[in-house]
Amino acid sequence: MSISDNVRARMVEGSWVRKMFEEGAVLKQRYGEDNVFDLSLGNPVMEPPPEFDHELKRLVENPLSGMHRYMANAGYSETRAAVAAQLSLETGVEFTMNDIVMTCGAAGGLNVALKTILNRGEEVIVFAPYFMEFGNYVDNHGGVIEVLPTDEQFIPKLDALEAAITAKTKSVIINSPNNPTGVVYSEDFVHQLGDLLGKKESQYGTQIFLISDEAYRKIIYDGLKYPPVFRHHRQSIVVASHSKDLALPGERVGYIAIHPECSEREELVGGFVFCNRTLGFVNAPALMQRAVQNLQQVTVSVAEYQKKRDFLYSNLAEMGYSLVKPQGAFYMFPKSPLEDDVAFVKELQQWNVLVVPGRGFGSPGYFRLSYCVNDRTLEGSLAGFKKAAQKFNMC
Amino acid sequence: MSISDNVRARMVEGSWVRKMFEEGAVLKQRYGEDNVFDLSLGNPVMEPPPEFDHELKRLVENPLSGMHRYMANAGYSETRAAVAAQLSLETGVEFTMNDIVMTCGAAGGLNVALKTILNRGEEVIVFAPYFMEFGNYVDNHGGVIEVLPTDEQFIPKLDALEAAITAKTKSVIINSPNNPTGVVYSEDFVHQLGDLLGKKESQYGTQIFLISDEAYRKIIYDGLKYPPVFRHHRQSIVVASHSKDLALPGERVGYIAIHPECSEREELVGGFVFCNRTLGFVNAPALMQRAVQNLQQVTVSVAEYQKKRDFLYSNLAEMGYSLVKPQGAFYMFPKSPLEDDVAFVKELQQWNVLVVPGRGFGSPGYFRLSYCVNDRTLEGSLAGFKKAAQKFNMC
Repeated sequence: MSISDNVRARMVEGSWVRKMFEEGAVLKQRYGEDNVFDLSLGNPVMEPPPEFDHELKRLVENPLSGMHRYMANAGYSETRAAVAAQLSLETGVEFTMNDIVMTCGAAGGLNVALKTILNRGEEVIVFAPYFMEFGNYVDNHGGVIEVLPTDEQFIPKLDALEAAITAKTKSVIINSPNNPTGVVYSEDFVHQLGDLLGKKESQYGTQIFLISDEAYRKIIYDGLKYPPVFRHHRQSIVVASHSKDLALPGERVGYIAIHPECSEREELVGGFVFCNRTLGFVNAPALMQRAVQNLQQVTVSVAEYQKKRDFLYSNLAEMGYSLVKPQGAFYMFPKSPLEDDVAFVKELQQWNVLVVPGRGFGSPGYFRLSYCVNDRTLEGSLAGFKKAAQKFNMC
Repeated sequence: MSISDNVRARMVEGSWVRKMFEEGAVLKQRYGEDNVFDLSLGNPVMEPPPEFDHELKRLVENPLSGMHRYMANAGYSETRAAVAAQLSLETGVEFTMNDIVMTCGAAGGLNVALKTILNRGEEVIVFAPYFMEFGNYVDNHGGVIEVLPTDEQFIPKLDALEAAITAKTKSVIINSPNNPTGVVYSEDFVHQLGDLLGKKESQYGTQIFLISDEAYRKIIYDGLKYPPVFRHHRQSIVVASHSKDLALPGERVGYIAIHPECSEREELVGGFVFCNRTLGFVNAPALMQRAVQNLQQVTVSVAEYQKKRDFLYSNLAEMGYSLVKPQGAFYMFPKSPLEDDVAFVKELQQWNVLVVPGRGFGSPGYFRLSYCVNDRTLEGSLAGFKKAAQKFNMC
């Protein structure tokens, strides 16, 4: 037995997104890439904005001496300062570079943050449906994940949270705009959540970290804004990424930001830097840190994503699918017309449409589709959705 | 108490390299950058070879559609195939891309490999002096590190290894060319090591992974070659990096290679890919994967490093320092003239020379110096070494 028992078990349990990816590859081989409509992956089809190409060219054509060497494990001061300035602007809370650690994307940032705070057996609360990698991340560092429900609109149920928090609760992870639902939490909700965490901290004499995964923070529609968690809870950690806002998922650059007034802030940041180093990230990729430094206010075309959302939402709603209208990110999470979401996903596959069953996000009975794809794929998928709707008498 | 007890303890124990870095920063501020001779860090002063600049420019000026998107977690097929071809050439063992997983440098690769194989409490053997991060990496994934001695020439003692291997031994990590000693293991040694591991595998009915950290494989002097471990042990995993051979430490690109005939190879590679994803690396940075694809036979100027070694080695030897002549990497590990290596390091600091105490590598009574610095720094350090030699009557 070569491989770790735990890794083997978790591999078998597996990632539904990846499973769909593999089944999709088979379909594409059989029917041709153009005849399969793959809405299973959150791998944006959009290219980075022209400002990114410009920055990258500028850096590569005018190389700085030592620009590919190690820097401090927290990242370049200039990049950290640029992120801090932007966060100050967005949140009204004053950040400095000392509150920022550059990371290998949000996935790297989450692992670093969890490793830093978790003692073995401490609990981390998430709300289903949720990005299932959270479970792997928490397990990596000896934590125990606890999954709580959301309401009909996919908003976490605060009464369930109140009942679930114990002296062992170290953190609550939220993700808004949300993968897989596209829901954006309101300022009122975040305020209530912060209040509740504060109350529980007092009750138990503990600190409960609100970790806000904001990979999609800049992809929000209808003029909405995601309210800064920093205004509502002091023990707040934001983990962000340029994977989606600058369409750079393969380049692995993002950051951790901690509330400037977080208690034991300095030790926590020291922990982030230590864990960034010792988990083997060492630092976020050097060239990409410099490339994103001047692009903190730049985002891919949100209008284009909104157009895709409008197109798909209105079509699916008209066909009779039951779904919450997403306000951000680039996912929808409709109810599965069959109770068995895997069976329904297989039905859709017969019409060459690929989506992910809701159980891949801890919520059986739904399915996720990702609309960060080109319009031809979106348009092509409609026939399959329509046939499924007819077959299951939804119209 | 916000931070994990284990992380806090390990931070306090700390990295001597980092401590020296911080004390050096103070000295530099006081005396000026040019008057401090910093031989403490393995951060190559050399720029990447011109071939790298050429490749990077070519990619950036002719962007491929989707070149910054996610790819398979194992990395681009083309890059994996290029690495496999090069390894086949170097080792005489036939590799395919299926034996290669691209990683965020060797540090990322080591974490991925250890996470994949280790069950809680399983043992990993290293030989002092050793790169102390190995201890953090093993601990990250629930393993227990066991440190064994080397001989006067810094070659692992195989009789000690034979006595130390138990049914719980999951892996032995070697690092050649070695950090901190610069020693390169001989083919004969690697053969004996492989034999011993094979014998112990039969005795216990286990598999013992030989993990070879080959971050410095291409930086070898005097026409020597590092013998491929793959020829001598079937359960072999090589972890490599382009941080040193292409001088890209900040860019985080390297790979794991597994013996094509390793038993349970496919499950192991599946584990690497899974752990690469779930530890939060997701994939090695996209642009850098492409940039190194055609550079598998390119290396920074090894002759230049050899010149630096010759210069420093002959000077230190002449002053009376007792040291093993390094044959690779860019470190030396002389005996400390004082039994207390930290005290000696502080003496050197008085003459503005920065090195790292041997206890930072598990071997008190020595010190490490890094000569991947510019010639001015090397030359400037000699006065301090000379004064210390005189003070401690070494001449």
